[in-house]
Order: sequence, then C-alpha cells, then structure tokens
Amino acid sequence: MSTAGYPKFLQKLIDVLSDLPTIGPKSAERMALFIIKSTRQKAKEFADSIVQARENIRRCGTCFYLSEQELCEVCRNRDIRDKVICVVEYPQDVIAIERTGRHKGLYHVLWGRLSPLEGTGPEDLPLKKLVQRIKDESIQEIIIATSSSREGETTAVYLNQLLASLGIKITRIARGIPIGINIGYIDQATISEAIIGRREVSA
Amino acid sequence: MSTAGYPKFLQKLIDVLSDLPTIGPKSAERMALFIIKSTRQKAKEFADSIVQARENIRRCGTCFYLSEQELCEVCRNRDIRDKVICVVEYPQDVIAIERTGRHKGLYHVLWGRLSPLEGTGPEDLPLKKLVQRIKDESIQEIIIATSSSREGETTAVYLNQLLASLGIKITRIARGIPIGINIGYIDQATISEAIIGRREVSA
Repeated sequence: MSTAGYPKFLQKLIDVLSDLPTIGPKSAERMALFIIKSTRQKAKEFADSIVQARENIRRCGTCFYLSEQELCEVCRNRDIRDKVICVVEYPQDVIAIERTGRHKGLYHVLWGRLSPLEGTGPEDLPLKKLVQRIKDESIQEIIIATSSSREGETTAVYLNQLLASLGIKITRIARGIPIGINIGYIDQATISEAIIGRREVSA
Repeated sequence: MSTAGYPKFLQKLIDVLSDLPTIGPKSAERMALFIIKSTRQKAKEFADSIVQARENIRRCGTCFYLSEQELCEVCRNRDIRDKVICVVEYPQDVIAIERTGRHKGLYHVLWGRLSPLEGTGPEDLPLKKLVQRIKDESIQEIIIATSSSREGETTAVYLNQLLASLGIKITRIARGIPIGINIGYIDQATISEAIIGRREVSA
C-alpha cells in the first residue's frame, strides 16, 4: 500500500512556491493551503497580479530602475531632479533611498555588483550607459551607494577609477554605526570606519 | 517633489504576496522582484498553478482531507486500509503521519481545534460526521492525534468524552522527548509526560 500524498495540483503549487527566494518547504505548504482556503476571487486576483507584474514591468531605458513605461518615474521627472546620479546595486535600494527623501537626484541601477567568485565582471554591469549619461545629462556628482560588502567595495573602487577621468565629483555614502544599534554588537571594521569618518559636533 | 515608489503592478504584487502567511514585507519584495525577473513562461506557470489548485482542490466528502475528487486518496482505498481513524487538526498532519508509514488506517481532519479564545466550539468541527463514520464504517479504534498544545489537549479530552459511549478503543498519540533533542532543552511538562509514559526496555 503506497502512502497518500497531497493532491497533484496542490503539490504542484507547493513546488512552485518553494522555488521562490526565502521560501522553505514548510512555508510553501502553509502558503499553498492558505491559497486553496481563500476565495476564488482572491486566488484569481493573486494569479492575475503575477501575470500583470511580469507582463508590464520592465527596466527603465535610461537608469534600469523598474517601470511600466519606457522611462521610470524618476527619469520622467528628470527636469525637476538634481543632476546627481546615485549608483545602486538593486531596485530595492532605490526605494530605500527614496523613502529617506535625502536624495533628490537620479539613479543608476547596476542589477548586481562586481564579483569574481560569481563570475560578474564589469562587462556584465551597465557601466557604458552610466558614462554616457554623465556626459549627456550634464551630471554634477556621482554618489556610489553600492553595499558595504566586499563585492560592493570592489565595485565602488572600480567605479571610482572608471569615472575619475570625467572630471566629475564622486562620493561614497558613509559607513558607520547604524542608528539604534549598540556599539558592542558592531564589528571592528565598521567601528574603525565610524571613527575615521567622525564629524565635529556643532555647539 | 514626491518620492518615487515601485511601479503600480509591482506594488500590487508585493501587497498580495504580503497577505500570505509567514511572508513579511521584505520577503514579499524579494519574491516579487524574483517573479518579474523570471521568464514569462515561469510566471504564467506560477499563476496557473494558483488558479488550478484553487479550482480543483476540495475537501474529501468523508474525512475532510484534501482531494481533487469527491473522495480523497485515502478514502478511495478504504477497503485495503485498517479500520482505524486517526483524528488530526490539519491536512499537513495527514502528510506528516503518512510519511512515517506507521498508520495504515483512515483519517478525520478537523480543520481546527477547540479554542474558546478563538471562538471555536464543538459545533465548528466535523464531529457529527466522525461519530457517523465510526458507526457506518465499523471502525475499531480512534487515534487522537491533535497537537500537544492546550487547545489540542482540550480537543482530545472532548473527543474522548464524546466517543466514550460508542464502545470503541480510543488512544492518544504519545508525548515525550523528540528524537535528537537533548533533554536539557525540553520543558518540564514534556519531561514529566515522558517519565509517566516510560516503557520497559526489551532485553
């Protein structure tokens, strides 16, 4: 006697959900059971939102951020934005920076970072387009906002070398102690950077 | 100047994914970006699997486990299964028990458990159907496999009282120390149960 499993269509859904990032088999099981217990309309809405997102979202033709049009929301407002390009690794970074309201310029999304281990070289990142934009859009400053991982640092160093000859201001976002975190929990390298980057306290 | 957000269809997908159990906003973001980066065929397959699972999976008319037919895989094989019903809270429990191969009988899925706090009373669980099955299917034993939480125990006690008059063997799955777990990490109540339920070691 063979043991019973999940019905075919349910197992298929569990398998598909398990392929998503951050989803383990137990989460996939719970999600799938939630879906089959939800209303038909809810399930349909879920399915439609997947297809619609996949069909309608593309990369912006200028900065490679996400968009439903040829140009993204930021690039469509290029005229009222500062002539400063913030270079980030992933689209999530754009959202995180936009939420601060501290950068009122443009973006350039690399969709990755230099990583010899993962086989990602300069030719895999949209760097030619970045150089072209700096020239075409009369950019005044490049803010390098790649991550503070080893790969992010490698990418920052490479970008700095690549862009040095263009005679443009190049900055790197500061490293330091995150707000609300006790120094005792922070690694040595970050503390060192925080001390090196210390600023005078205004009276 | 308003700050840029995600394109509408992407935000919609993130919102829908966030509604799933175990999924926080950051996971939903990563999943949504994974979906829009996948091939059209993959995205279509994902959407289809949601609709197909929702449209085709129902509860078994006898035991309330999941099925694509009127009767589930277990109940369709009723004739070659033992006349023993294992009562569980959720469909996942059926799969977990089937995987052991230790129970070759039938199931009864409550889709919940008695919980005064959550407002789940006996009338919310398919208990009449269970009593009817015991009579109709000449069942020899009921194994109560509700969870060892307070609600699971309450449900087990209630079931025992409900079925006592039917003159049928009623058992409760054993509680004890899970395999591979150091006793030092186990709560007192479980250790007590494990001592009470100790068995003589065969020579």
